[in-house]
Amino acid sequence: MNTSLFHWRHRVTYAECTIGNHVYYARYLDILEEARGEFFRHAGQPLTRLQETDTLLPVIEARLRYRGAARYDDVLTVEVAIAELAKVRLAFNHRILHESGRLLVEGATVHACTSLEEKPKRIPSELAAALAPFVVTDAEGHGGRVGIAAPVS
Amino acid sequence: MNTSLFHWRHRVTYAECTIGNHVYYARYLDILEEARGEFFRHAGQPLTRLQETDTLLPVIEARLRYRGAARYDDVLTVEVAIAELAKVRLAFNHRILHESGRLLVEGATVHACTSLEEKPKRIPSELAAALAPFVVTDAEGHGGRVGIAAPVS
Amino acid sequence: MNTSLFHWRHRVTYAECTIGNHVYYARYLDILEEARGEFFRHAGQPLTRLQETDTLLPVIEARLRYRGAARYDDVLTVEVAIAELAKVRLAFNHRILHESGRLLVEGATVHACTSLEEKPKRIPSELAAALAPFVVTDAEGHGGRVGIAAPVS
Amino acid sequence: MNTSLFHWRHRVTYAECTIGNHVYYARYLDILEEARGEFFRHAGQPLTRLQETDTLLPVIEARLRYRGAARYDDVLTVEVAIAELAKVRLAFNHRILHESGRLLVEGATVHACTSLEEKPKRIPSELAAALAPFVVTDAEGHGGRVGIAAPVS
Repeated sequence: MNTSLFHWRHRVTYAECTIGNHVYYARYLDILEEARGEFFRHAGQPLTRLQETDTLLPVIEARLRYRGAARYDDVLTVEVAIAELAKVRLAFNHRILHESGRLLVEGATVHACTSLEEKPKRIPSELAAALAPFVVTDAEGHGGRVGIAAPVS
Repeated sequence: MNTSLFHWRHRVTYAECTIGNHVYYARYLDILEEARGEFFRHAGQPLTRLQETDTLLPVIEARLRYRGAARYDDVLTVEVAIAELAKVRLAFNHRILHESGRLLVEGATVHACTSLEEKPKRIPSELAAALAPFVVTDAEGHGGRVGIAAPVS
Repeated sequence: MNTSLFHWRHRVTYAECTIGNHVYYARYLDILEEARGEFFRHAGQPLTRLQETDTLLPVIEARLRYRGAARYDDVLTVEVAIAELAKVRLAFNHRILHESGRLLVEGATVHACTSLEEKPKRIPSELAAALAPFVVTDAEGHGGRVGIAAPVS
Repeated sequence: MNTSLFHWRHRVTYAECTIGNHVYYARYLDILEEARGEFFRHAGQPLTRLQETDTLLPVIEARLRYRGAARYDDVLTVEVAIAELAKVRLAFNHRILHESGRLLVEGATVHACTSLEEKPKRIPSELAAALAPFVVTDAEGHGGRVGIAAPVS
């Protein structure tokens, strides 16, 4: 059962914008990384600590759908949910919302679990247990293996 | 029939790398933008000229699959191919290769065609004609509507 | 008389780091921009509002001295102080500190005051009044026209 | 005597621009890094090779003067010259020019010479010999220790 989504607040800077006053399409991945880092801390598993226990979670796939433009000085809410929690991989679903509630971006990232030498390894059980409450299910509309986080085939 | 893929050469800088000596996952989208800009110039349709004729091609979807890490000072080859050329949208398939020939990243971007006021419009016929030779077909393995460029839903 | 420095907290992301686990030298300018944007809001003069009254503050000079490396996940404190408040220009002194108190970066930016058409104009009196409490003086060691904010000549 | 400046060509992308169609102030440091990397290769001393011989050249100071705006798709010329070649430090003077010849940015960077463990070391004699032809002198107007590359204190 899902307890709650994690939300992260982000204020848009000039550095993130491009011509036409909107956030450059690649910068949303920077913003998602920032939000995921805070999510892991919130779940009691900061990425720096995972690294000390020989665990990395490199992104092996990323997808973004741009629904609307974020502008300079906008306050964005980044939703972080886990779409898939498997033995050696992890997938996130993200939504980035304008403070008005308008959906701006849907994003999904798929991560492998590896050692520092980038060899695949199982997600440590302590990490899996900490993440489990954040796994969303279809009924909640964020879709385990459906929607934007579906495997590419 | 496809004449040839467009190729763009890119040398990796420190600015693009992150910890662990590999290109940060978002920076590949910057590199793809650079390559597409040069592709449009190569096709005789530089983006600055399209803008003067009230045509923008904003990205509405982007997908990346990370197959291997690009490192500082690596020389990358970015392949640019058109996966879909429709009335009001355009999709690109990209591959980023290491100079050894190793595949590092597969990327796809979907673009709308809009006016400067961001209203949807048909792709101008002159632009469509210039892009047509770069449309790839399934037999070539870059897949019109298959693979990573397939629609998400 | 100086009331107090403005302080801004920033957590380092992977996006900001480069090889060797330290923040890339250019990213500190992004961080300073973020801090200045928040400073203007704190002073009751958000940059978006200044823009509505035909006022821009483009950077005409920037200087950075790197004293130590900020690393992934470090929490930085960015100090914002005004080193010079003249008729048509404004200069900031910044220090970026590690949470341990260690000085990492000293930075200075010099800004012109212009209209949206980039023509020089006087700093509006309301803005000048709002900024005046943040002007630092030599005795405080952040130096009006000394140190890193000194004119280049 | 100076043989010649090194010049590097850079085409501006959307990724580098911000609101108002000009290059974001921090991105010029990325462009200077790219140009210096190519300069070291040109001088027969690629940075990757220096690293293999336990030599790093971290930036300890950077200064930029913004004289004009570079816009999307502009072709820039980056001049690279050595302003100072001392025992354990190295300083560069840069100018970024529009293809029309207009000066856009003056930049200076000061580098320490260190081991991979970031301990100061002398610039290896082979490196110093390779760089010597690129040292500019006052008479050429790029100034050894004058102008923007002058020491701050």
